[in-house]
Amino acid sequence: MPEAARQALADAVGAGGLLTDPADCWPYGYDNSRRQCLPQAVAFVTDAEQVAAVVRVCNAHRIPLTARGLGTGTTGATVPEPGGVVVSFERMSRILAIDPANRLAVVEPGVVNDDLQRAAAEHGFFWPPDPTSAAVCTIGGNLAYNAAGPKAVKYGTPRENTLGLEAVTGTGERLRTGVMTSKGVVGYDLTRLIIGSEGTLALVTRATLKLTPLPEAKRTLRATYRDIHSAAAAVAAIMAQPITPCALEFMDAAAIDMVRRFSDLGVPDGTGALLMIEVDGPADCVDAAAEDVGAAARNDGLIELAVAADKDEIAALWRTRKALSPALRHVAPKKINEDVVVPVARIATFIDGLEHLSREHAITIVNFGHAGNGNIHVNLLVNPDDPDEMARAAVCLSAVFDLVVELGGTLSGEHGVGLEKRDFVDRELDPVAMDLMRAIKRQFDPNGILNPGKGLPPA
Amino acid sequence: MPEAARQALADAVGAGGLLTDPADCWPYGYDNSRRQCLPQAVAFVTDAEQVAAVVRVCNAHRIPLTARGLGTGTTGATVPEPGGVVVSFERMSRILAIDPANRLAVVEPGVVNDDLQRAAAEHGFFWPPDPTSAAVCTIGGNLAYNAAGPKAVKYGTPRENTLGLEAVTGTGERLRTGVMTSKGVVGYDLTRLIIGSEGTLALVTRATLKLTPLPEAKRTLRATYRDIHSAAAAVAAIMAQPITPCALEFMDAAAIDMVRRFSDLGVPDGTGALLMIEVDGPADCVDAAAEDVGAAARNDGLIELAVAADKDEIAALWRTRKALSPALRHVAPKKINEDVVVPVARIATFIDGLEHLSREHAITIVNFGHAGNGNIHVNLLVNPDDPDEMARAAVCLSAVFDLVVELGGTLSGEHGVGLEKRDFVDRELDPVAMDLMRAIKRQFDPNGILNPGKGLPPA
Repeated sequence: MPEAARQALADAVGAGGLLTDPADCWPYGYDNSRRQCLPQAVAFVTDAEQVAAVVRVCNAHRIPLTARGLGTGTTGATVPEPGGVVVSFERMSRILAIDPANRLAVVEPGVVNDDLQRAAAEHGFFWPPDPTSAAVCTIGGNLAYNAAGPKAVKYGTPRENTLGLEAVTGTGERLRTGVMTSKGVVGYDLTRLIIGSEGTLALVTRATLKLTPLPEAKRTLRATYRDIHSAAAAVAAIMAQPITPCALEFMDAAAIDMVRRFSDLGVPDGTGALLMIEVDGPADCVDAAAEDVGAAARNDGLIELAVAADKDEIAALWRTRKALSPALRHVAPKKINEDVVVPVARIATFIDGLEHLSREHAITIVNFGHAGNGNIHVNLLVNPDDPDEMARAAVCLSAVFDLVVELGGTLSGEHGVGLEKRDFVDRELDPVAMDLMRAIKRQFDPNGILNPGKGLPPA
Repeated sequence: MPEAARQALADAVGAGGLLTDPADCWPYGYDNSRRQCLPQAVAFVTDAEQVAAVVRVCNAHRIPLTARGLGTGTTGATVPEPGGVVVSFERMSRILAIDPANRLAVVEPGVVNDDLQRAAAEHGFFWPPDPTSAAVCTIGGNLAYNAAGPKAVKYGTPRENTLGLEAVTGTGERLRTGVMTSKGVVGYDLTRLIIGSEGTLALVTRATLKLTPLPEAKRTLRATYRDIHSAAAAVAAIMAQPITPCALEFMDAAAIDMVRRFSDLGVPDGTGALLMIEVDGPADCVDAAAEDVGAAARNDGLIELAVAADKDEIAALWRTRKALSPALRHVAPKKINEDVVVPVARIATFIDGLEHLSREHAITIVNFGHAGNGNIHVNLLVNPDDPDEMARAAVCLSAVFDLVVELGGTLSGEHGVGLEKRDFVDRELDPVAMDLMRAIKRQFDPNGILNPGKGLPPA
């Protein structure tokens, strides 16, 4: 980096705001994809004007710039380019307002998801996006990936739960998008365009989020099935009746077997698939809602339908589901974790196809995820030290993506594209749409300094 | 129009698909703004390839092109440019799929909103956007304006209820955006960018819509208040508690007086404001929900809280609200009807400000609308034959918009911008955002043939 650029960055963020020693910068060069790249500098911004100043310096010197929350993403979208600068939002983490009557919160991007939830809960509200990493991921990251979680089936993703943004373009210009209200149709929808763009269009410096009232009560059910077909039929039946669950999670046989190795699941023998179902609402309604959803969950393949009676039982039921990710880390040296989506009615066909691909390529595949959205986390378990297995896995993964597209699905429901899926997205995206996306990118970031190489393959 | 262009258009849409006689074209040159402009030709498209062919002809000859559903818009957005061509979607009105397990419908843009609702209802579903004009407006128009209605307070607008689109750009290229599923984060969100763009970016040729299960039951309440402050306080209290109503409509004193002249309202004497409140949900829950919402609606200014006991009483309660638009047409030769939005907690301040402006400019202002969204229909009643009054109204309207922006609101919640508000949107929109919108427009429509002059003021 030219000394003038380093000095200008230091001037932009003030004393103590810039790291340039490689040893200091190293921890800011990775994310949960386990990819890593050393940035030339890390700039800790504390307000929007600093963000704009940093971007202007990088733009003037054509230095690639990658925004970073707390690095929990799984696709490499926060891994910097070689020679790039990381803008860390960890010191820009204030909750600026919680406004119950207007059902909104105003936050800086570095706010941790759980911290917002706690602040909103004091007023009887929550922000629906609830990634598994909520305790350690930031709102800025949630917006960058349009990250969601189990509650999305009822309450939507960040795109449905964000009213407006403040952001900085690739030329360092500050802009304001959207509204403070739950309706607004003046101008084009730049808010949702920026959400999910993985820091390639603009850096969010402030977000106005739509809050939802906390439900009074919740009921948790666990349904076990003989096979995936019965479970998938139950999912379709549940989604075709009036009560929308606030979580509808599933695990396939391989996932159940995996957890069994590490903990007492308490699921009946012969379980080939499992659903976790939650309903929420007014206290005097959730029992009836649980009954209705339970009725839809019943079919010939149901083995057992368990309703949690109290908090301990809820925790016990969720233990199975939550034991899964750690179990996977123990079982295989590496998991290739994809979060594809297929239409709900095609989940069974998809899982059948995955079993076929697993046998064909001799790769263990474990599946779980947000069944109500058709959002399936497909995990290929592999040993990176076995080049033959890694080669088979690559071919298998490619076939998985083809199957998803063939079934009318999408390659990512909530993890985003980043580097991991970048070279596959042209299988899904329309070529005219992709050209327009690249053209839009050039309007926001004419010199291509904002997180280059992420999200879309080179033209 | 050059003969070559006319012939190419006729070739594109086939025999019987093109009108060029001014007498035939005249009825396709207006919308509900009462603006009118004679198009040179009207092309009736029947499939996406025809749409693309028509756009290519217009692009080659630089002929402005305006899409048209059934002309119910109120902002002039479907009024063609002088010398322009109207593309009518009235013959492209097939419902292609209703898919309950995947909770989606696939429709052509000319489908009438009510027809979709009926088809979805057979499967136990509905599409939430419900403009007052649902019986005569098209889905394509709903998407063009992001038009909503009373249900938006609980169920959202088209942007929250559309999964994907097929569309044609200003160069006649066909593209596909979005997904078939309720989650998807691959590529930038072109779906929401096109929604609300009033036919200036692309012409929608097919939409995949997210369906919602029909609630089992509904309860309707009418609350009358001594003054707008009490009613506004009730709205804020209702929105700050857990039950979200599926309609939360309001009328101010002037609106109530207006209706009184034409029908027996049955509202108590001294009523200064009125709320219509609906809750929906499972049959065994709606009474409790109505009680909770009713409790939030109670305050010192409440005069009467009436709960409808049956269908007739529901109809009677809604009669007041529905009598309003026709009454306004009777009372004044012209109403300047704006659908501004302010944060819910600022409704009372806003109505106070309107009363002040009404007195200051000697213009009658009648207000009603979707209070739960802060979406207030502000009606300035004027006589177009009185130039002095029209001049005062123009000054007053400008002050209304300034007040909206000052209160953190937006100039339009669901009607859109079109021609009517075009020259005011720079008061609300950020200048950098507006430049980006214009730049995006150029990527979709480099020659500026798609509905030129609508939505954004000239640079």
